[in-house]
Amino acid sequence: MKIGFIGLGNMGSAIAGNLLKAGHQLTVWNRSPAAVTELAARGAVAAKAPIEALKGELLFSMLANDDALREVGLDGALLGQAAPGLVHVNLATISVDLAHELAEAHAARGIGYVAAPVFGRPEAAAAKKLIVIAAGTDKDIARARPALEAIGQRLTVVGSIPEQANLFKIAGNFMLAAAIETMGEAIALLRKGGVDPALFIEVMTTSLFASPAYQGYGAIIVGQKYEPAGFKLRLGKKDLGLALDAGDRLQVTLPLASLIHDHFIEAMASGFGDKDWAALAGLAATKAGLPSVA
Amino acid sequence: MKIGFIGLGNMGSAIAGNLLKAGHQLTVWNRSPAAVTELAARGAVAAKAPIEALKGELLFSMLANDDALREVGLDGALLGQAAPGLVHVNLATISVDLAHELAEAHAARGIGYVAAPVFGRPEAAAAKKLIVIAAGTDKDIARARPALEAIGQRLTVVGSIPEQANLFKIAGNFMLAAAIETMGEAIALLRKGGVDPALFIEVMTTSLFASPAYQGYGAIIVGQKYEPAGFKLRLGKKDLGLALDAGDRLQVTLPLASLIHDHFIEAMASGFGDKDWAALAGLAATKAGLPSVA
Amino acid sequence: MKIGFIGLGNMGSAIAGNLLKAGHQLTVWNRSPAAVTELAARGAVAAKAPIEALKGELLFSMLANDDALREVGLDGALLGQAAPGLVHVNLATISVDLAHELAEAHAARGIGYVAAPVFGRPEAAAAKKLIVIAAGTDKDIARARPALEAIGQRLTVVGSIPEQANLFKIAGNFMLAAAIETMGEAIALLRKGGVDPALFIEVMTTSLFASPAYQGYGAIIVGQKYEPAGFKLRLGKKDLGLALDAGDRLQVTLPLASLIHDHFIEAMASGFGDKDWAALAGLAATKAGLPSVA
Amino acid sequence: MKIGFIGLGNMGSAIAGNLLKAGHQLTVWNRSPAAVTELAARGAVAAKAPIEALKGELLFSMLANDDALREVGLDGALLGQAAPGLVHVNLATISVDLAHELAEAHAARGIGYVAAPVFGRPEAAAAKKLIVIAAGTDKDIARARPALEAIGQRLTVVGSIPEQANLFKIAGNFMLAAAIETMGEAIALLRKGGVDPALFIEVMTTSLFASPAYQGYGAIIVGQKYEPAGFKLRLGKKDLGLALDAGDRLQVTLPLASLIHDHFIEAMASGFGDKDWAALAGLAATKAGLPSVA
Repeated sequence: MKIGFIGLGNMGSAIAGNLLKAGHQLTVWNRSPAAVTELAARGAVAAKAPIEALKGELLFSMLANDDALREVGLDGALLGQAAPGLVHVNLATISVDLAHELAEAHAARGIGYVAAPVFGRPEAAAAKKLIVIAAGTDKDIARARPALEAIGQRLTVVGSIPEQANLFKIAGNFMLAAAIETMGEAIALLRKGGVDPALFIEVMTTSLFASPAYQGYGAIIVGQKYEPAGFKLRLGKKDLGLALDAGDRLQVTLPLASLIHDHFIEAMASGFGDKDWAALAGLAATKAGLPSVA
Repeated sequence: MKIGFIGLGNMGSAIAGNLLKAGHQLTVWNRSPAAVTELAARGAVAAKAPIEALKGELLFSMLANDDALREVGLDGALLGQAAPGLVHVNLATISVDLAHELAEAHAARGIGYVAAPVFGRPEAAAAKKLIVIAAGTDKDIARARPALEAIGQRLTVVGSIPEQANLFKIAGNFMLAAAIETMGEAIALLRKGGVDPALFIEVMTTSLFASPAYQGYGAIIVGQKYEPAGFKLRLGKKDLGLALDAGDRLQVTLPLASLIHDHFIEAMASGFGDKDWAALAGLAATKAGLPSVA
Repeated sequence: MKIGFIGLGNMGSAIAGNLLKAGHQLTVWNRSPAAVTELAARGAVAAKAPIEALKGELLFSMLANDDALREVGLDGALLGQAAPGLVHVNLATISVDLAHELAEAHAARGIGYVAAPVFGRPEAAAAKKLIVIAAGTDKDIARARPALEAIGQRLTVVGSIPEQANLFKIAGNFMLAAAIETMGEAIALLRKGGVDPALFIEVMTTSLFASPAYQGYGAIIVGQKYEPAGFKLRLGKKDLGLALDAGDRLQVTLPLASLIHDHFIEAMASGFGDKDWAALAGLAATKAGLPSVA
Repeated sequence: MKIGFIGLGNMGSAIAGNLLKAGHQLTVWNRSPAAVTELAARGAVAAKAPIEALKGELLFSMLANDDALREVGLDGALLGQAAPGLVHVNLATISVDLAHELAEAHAARGIGYVAAPVFGRPEAAAAKKLIVIAAGTDKDIARARPALEAIGQRLTVVGSIPEQANLFKIAGNFMLAAAIETMGEAIALLRKGGVDPALFIEVMTTSLFASPAYQGYGAIIVGQKYEPAGFKLRLGKKDLGLALDAGDRLQVTLPLASLIHDHFIEAMASGFGDKDWAALAGLAATKAGLPSVA
């Protein structure tokens, strides 16, 4: 297929690479040109302006936040000049509110819109191991499906309204943060009681909690290795904020999400904003009067 | 070995059965005699009074709570008449305070004391699949080891002070409750947003959260099957209370444990005390204005 | 002085009335014309369009929320046509973010801007008993002072940056919500223990808590009179949201504000959105399994 | 009347002094003798053993905690030797559980029991300005009334079951802690926003919150004068623990009390246990990254 791609950060580049490998024709654009050059070397066409990426059958975008998306013009301005029949696949984790607004802006201009946030880090993206959560009309999903199947190990369609995919992703990220908070509190308690936290995590994550989330973050927390950040704490705070905004909109009280959001703010006030979000566990240690590297 | 066993509820009976299978000589006592009869049929000696269970090399006890233990006299009275060199292996999940008191009471009378709480339900106990967490002096652990290895799939020694095993177990139960609370909030959000909770749990528990705890409780929560209770909510409240007491004692703030404890109380005020503790998720649904069977 | 006034709800009308009484010349505008007619009868000039209210020395505005303000054009569009030297006095409780944006928008067009939120209900406004919290440059404050002194019992200047007055007001509203939550929890506890809540509130609010906030809300809570609403719960939720947004922006964790915000959402999910925000106490009763009219 | 008095700390001595002034005959006992000597100089009889204080018409006790009370034997042992018809007036803030147990222990021995906790600090006690909250049977209250009226500015009977007075007092102390937490969070927010906290407290505590609790603690918080402690933070933690225990017993969820209790623990882990409980506000400042003397 003829696919445009806007937003070539670590995640975007890895995903675009898999689209190329799958034989799609890519036209790519990025604010800073280095990533463009690299993909062009692998066969992509380098766009001179974002609009060139809207001239194919699909447009993929992976932009860091709402502002980046608005700056490029994907919330409206640019859409008017898109190729007829274009379907925009938005891979980013954005707010339910913005997802709703974007769906309307696209519909108003006759452009398809699929929300397709992903679970997985850049390494998983490169290895085609992402879990892709998609939502959109049957028609739009059908159009995007071949490309979506080329970028992950699994594609799950969760609804016909795009924002539902964002809600799904937000709920998933909340679960990760909750697992971190949980281990942080448990380990603070054990450390003050003289029990080896490494042993605790080893026992729990080879039995009841034998899953990648607990194993991965458990190791980070036990080792207190909060730098370099795999996922920055300030982004974690943003994601929990998205969960709370969604809860506010849908009238769902999320007290655990509130608690974690508060802890993220407290951690940022202590200067942990650029550490890994697992530094939430470092904060739990500090609050217990324990020495902590975070 | 010659082993006494006091407390033959579902868990105790299953564990005692495995000690018999492993070739140990058992003298068993229980308040209600039915369980005694059953084990006697399998080769155990039925004690006429608790003290008879203290005349061997080891005493195992699995009593529901502090009061039951005090009633039998294992907090002091009975210990004075124990066989010299007896080591008491306490399998119950008790408070760190009581564990501390018991360790002192035993030491004062020259009796060994090992705390050995277990992870696993009665079926796991019967299948010898328990995870046994033990703490005590090297000498006491060495004495109890052959028997402890006969009752579970894994024996982990976590410290030389008995109460450390209790702290470990309490922290583990807190992790389970936190997983339930997390899924409860996430699912309430998704339900109000029109996303299928079964699909969400399926995706999450085959990827990042592919572990027994999330799979088991995820299924209960999605199916809203809170009865019959695998583990009663009122016992869950007790266990979170043990975590908070331990935090108070060790000066560790556990805000997530406090939040869950509050929710357990709220659930009990709504009449959920005898449902499965996963009904915490039913409470999250109710708070969001959703219909809930819990 | 020649003063324009936009936004004649209950609060706005009462305040405008006091400006008239103090001898100022008023040009008033409102979306629905009834309030305009009434003030015109008392000597105000009825504006045909909002811009006419920007042609004097001062512009007062009291608009319900950010959207209303943007709709009228006070965030930019209209400002370009204002009389030279105009100072805009914004009486509304708005977010710190918007306050910041407005201050910049006014400065860019050479128009003065004073944030002057008030404490007090419509009756207090009519009786000139408001407490006025103002912030702005010395020059702007000096210009607005005579008018500000005409509308309340006390004018307090809290800073030279307009948003500081909004932060002050937001903190004050948080204190009110916290007092309601506190009494709600205390009374739920006492009711379940068989102690008369009326007696408790009487004792406390004639001694340690002998203040208007506790006396007023204490009476509402004891009487469970949550309708008609003096201040709607959904507006209370909005104000706590403003506090949390400010905390997020300034990196201040406000766990009590988060807790109350969660309770407001929970109350709204139960259909309490249009009741008085003191219905927060009704929620506390419900959570304890008590019958509650809220 | 002939009155015994056990427990002559700051509060007890001041109260006993007022009983003397009112013309009652006092027999006093205290663990450390200095306070006894002082009251003897003012006309009291110095008891050689606690039992001598149980030989009159009334026994007043003001012991710091459950352990002190048990040590003296007032939970049972001593009661069997009391004068017939004795009524025990317990002034201490104790748990609802202990109050319940004591009421039963007294009833079993035919001794009257009135719970009469007080609001007020030692200065207020000396000045006869305490607020006395009493509960007990009509008969016991009638007997104790003349003495109770001699020690405070107001006597309020809140129920016929002694523990109800303790519940009332516990709820009142919770309200105080909540006011401190509220001001602490509000002031942290204002400080980071550049608003003068002294001005905020001045405005609020001369208007909506013009009450002794807010004025007194507001001044301490603004001045950050957490030493010497008027009421130690560790005792505040104990009192919030009593509230939570009562909530647990009565199935009343008290999320604000939980939050404050957590903060007290966190403050203790930071070494604030012996500071004034208003240092809760110092913790709020610290969590926001502000310098704090607490």
